[in-house]
Amino acid sequence: MRNLILSLIPVMALFSLTGCQKETTSHNEEVVPALLQQKAFNSNLAYELVESLTVEVGPRLAGSEKDPIAVEWAIKQLTSLNFDRVYKEPVQVPVWQRGDAKASITSPYPQPLVITALGGSIGTPPDGIIASIARFDSLGSLEKATPEEVSGKIVFIDQLTERHKTSKGYVKSAAARLHGASVAAHKGALAVINRTVGTSQNRIAQTGMVKYQDGINKIPAVAISSPDAELINAMLRRSNDVKIKLHLSSKSMGFTTSFNVIAEVTGSNKPEEIVLISAHLDSWDEGTGASDDGAGIAIVTAAAKLIQDLPTKPARTVRVVLYAAEEVGYFGARAYAKEHQAELDKHYIAAESDFGAAPVYQIDFGINNANFAEVIQLVQPMTGNGIALGNNSSTGGPDVSFLHKKGVPVASLRQDGTDYFDYHHSPNDTLDKIDPEALQQNVAAYAQFAYLMAQSEFDLRPITAD
Amino acid sequence: MRNLILSLIPVMALFSLTGCQKETTSHNEEVVPALLQQKAFNSNLAYELVESLTVEVGPRLAGSEKDPIAVEWAIKQLTSLNFDRVYKEPVQVPVWQRGDAKASITSPYPQPLVITALGGSIGTPPDGIIASIARFDSLGSLEKATPEEVSGKIVFIDQLTERHKTSKGYVKSAAARLHGASVAAHKGALAVINRTVGTSQNRIAQTGMVKYQDGINKIPAVAISSPDAELINAMLRRSNDVKIKLHLSSKSMGFTTSFNVIAEVTGSNKPEEIVLISAHLDSWDEGTGASDDGAGIAIVTAAAKLIQDLPTKPARTVRVVLYAAEEVGYFGARAYAKEHQAELDKHYIAAESDFGAAPVYQIDFGINNANFAEVIQLVQPMTGNGIALGNNSSTGGPDVSFLHKKGVPVASLRQDGTDYFDYHHSPNDTLDKIDPEALQQNVAAYAQFAYLMAQSEFDLRPITAD
Repeated sequence: MRNLILSLIPVMALFSLTGCQKETTSHNEEVVPALLQQKAFNSNLAYELVESLTVEVGPRLAGSEKDPIAVEWAIKQLTSLNFDRVYKEPVQVPVWQRGDAKASITSPYPQPLVITALGGSIGTPPDGIIASIARFDSLGSLEKATPEEVSGKIVFIDQLTERHKTSKGYVKSAAARLHGASVAAHKGALAVINRTVGTSQNRIAQTGMVKYQDGINKIPAVAISSPDAELINAMLRRSNDVKIKLHLSSKSMGFTTSFNVIAEVTGSNKPEEIVLISAHLDSWDEGTGASDDGAGIAIVTAAAKLIQDLPTKPARTVRVVLYAAEEVGYFGARAYAKEHQAELDKHYIAAESDFGAAPVYQIDFGINNANFAEVIQLVQPMTGNGIALGNNSSTGGPDVSFLHKKGVPVASLRQDGTDYFDYHHSPNDTLDKIDPEALQQNVAAYAQFAYLMAQSEFDLRPITAD
Repeated sequence: MRNLILSLIPVMALFSLTGCQKETTSHNEEVVPALLQQKAFNSNLAYELVESLTVEVGPRLAGSEKDPIAVEWAIKQLTSLNFDRVYKEPVQVPVWQRGDAKASITSPYPQPLVITALGGSIGTPPDGIIASIARFDSLGSLEKATPEEVSGKIVFIDQLTERHKTSKGYVKSAAARLHGASVAAHKGALAVINRTVGTSQNRIAQTGMVKYQDGINKIPAVAISSPDAELINAMLRRSNDVKIKLHLSSKSMGFTTSFNVIAEVTGSNKPEEIVLISAHLDSWDEGTGASDDGAGIAIVTAAAKLIQDLPTKPARTVRVVLYAAEEVGYFGARAYAKEHQAELDKHYIAAESDFGAAPVYQIDFGINNANFAEVIQLVQPMTGNGIALGNNSSTGGPDVSFLHKKGVPVASLRQDGTDYFDYHHSPNDTLDKIDPEALQQNVAAYAQFAYLMAQSEFDLRPITAD
């Protein structure tokens, strides 16, 4: 009872602050979310976290020398925030060195190109590769090409990334980046050049993984910026033999140990049941990993901290997971799903923040259809934070999808990604692109979500198949 | 007479096209500008020229292997456009090699930096320089510093570039880029890092000249992007000893011969008198020189071509000058002023286009005050192209100022430069940043200006001192 009274003090303060005269209520599912929202908008914690991470760690490619520094940073921050538990779990992650990447058009009109190596790419021979270009406007067109069109050439996949609020434009062009090398190599190509997977006209190429298919020869894979793609196209309009020289010293160097870093707010009543909110600790190596995924780390950490600081903890445990090695193939998420297999049935719901720092505009679930209508009503307080109540078609984000595949209910707090792919996976992913106020809105959203889920009395399982 | 009648045919066509029923007039100063404007907006010539230059030549640093290719391109284009005269004049230009430029913060938090060598910079010793930073918020602050604050350090001039419609923001911060190295070296600095002279938050550093003062030790000079400047500042808030490692292999290698390329539309009545419209043929080496100054080349060339194609040529000669080596110190403009010294008194007026491709919003003059009111009325037809009639305070652009200093009347067709310094002097100066319609508006403006000046009966001299 003492706890209940204590828990109402900030709520009463809230209502007196807002001048509302209605009676305070013990219906925490209404008043605590409002309180969390107000506290989120009064706190700079998330911004301070992403600022600290980008300045004191910066780029933190999985398996690089910055990887353990990022882990150490996370442990230190979570510990200093006084979470009930802070721990880490080992993850084997690949080691890849970017090296140098240079390319130029050598014919018909010599010009340098702005490129970047794709993650995981092999290098060229030390003297580089010079070959004619075979251009395709999409991965689909390349798939239809004959070996004669491609063999001995550098394949140029000129696939545009459409600008959308969701990730649907990215998903399509990222497939060309992931699979282009193996599709091209299977037909005898020497290397592959992808038009940047992004929506900007900046002369900056965006990195991201290439996925070599087993049994197919590996070939070097790079991205070029949009203006460079347009330059090549202008030359192809003048000549059907555009030659490119490519030099890449990238290489893979086995595996090393990194860690998933985890913090918990212990549940007051059902501590063994888990509401999981997550992000990934690694980043690409050319920016400072501000939007991807410093923002996500900051959002879920600051959200959990608001719950940690509540006078009365919610029933379930709120677990923050900062995954290792997402960018290079979801190694942390896979390891988590394996390591926690025995308690996956105790994972009440899972969500992740990995789409930058723009505002959340909608919440979707991936739970049992029968209870969806009631659960979506339960998160109705989130509408006060500008969030629409969505659908039940979520499969979770990239990391959380590994839990969803094993039956864990998920939610997606949809962020406006209209500009996200302007900077994504590029040197331009820096702190200045983050709007502190939008970050606060995200913190409020995740705090409200985690609190309401940790208090929910609905059954979310079995999840309804897609 | 036959020519006069022929010359009226398109004018009559113009009026019939626009449905105007008023009688055609022989008052060419009214109808020809309208005709030129219509023809400019119906022509893609300027866009085709800048596309050709950026694709077939691309970056064309003065003195580089691309310099003669640019000259050859210009001669070929101007010849194929059937100007009355096309010729070139030799100019001695400096040779500078950019080499490699790398920098990183080594302490307190190691991070790579995005930098570019400033034009003309010397290199570092082969092993680079590691030193602590001494930060100044402006060139003025650096000037006030004691040698003790600076000696043995890498000076960081964190001067912001203000965004304005005019170049006034640029002019201030460019002074820090030009003179920072010598001011810092005079107090014992080892190197200088300038915050990029530009208005963008892109993680791209912008180049531009450094001007070493005679008698002062030369030190390496680089620019860093705005996000990198902010990263250094974030570290300086945490530590008063931020160390940077800088490696630069830039070097100067004497002089070589380039050319001013010139084309003329011979005047019908006073062919020895010259209306000069100009731009510069060289560019920086990291973009493709689209806005700076491919646009200017395209604008003045296409404008002159409209006049070349008039059935009756205007009285004076319209001379297009494409200067060599503007970026590296106005070598072409200086050479032109010297080479043409004997006929400078026959230069009726001079103007240049070197501010990108955004629309012209105002015309200013630098002529005799006594006739200004009448001359500004003479160009009244330009208001139909969206151009305001301005003042008499122009001193010409960077290249034309050398003529103005010798008494040649000048005009400035002011373009909206609000976004110009986002891309200026960077890899981002590419064709896609140019709006074809704005380019047409510029062509119309220069064609109208050149025609009206070539027909003018006013005396513009002696120019009124500033």
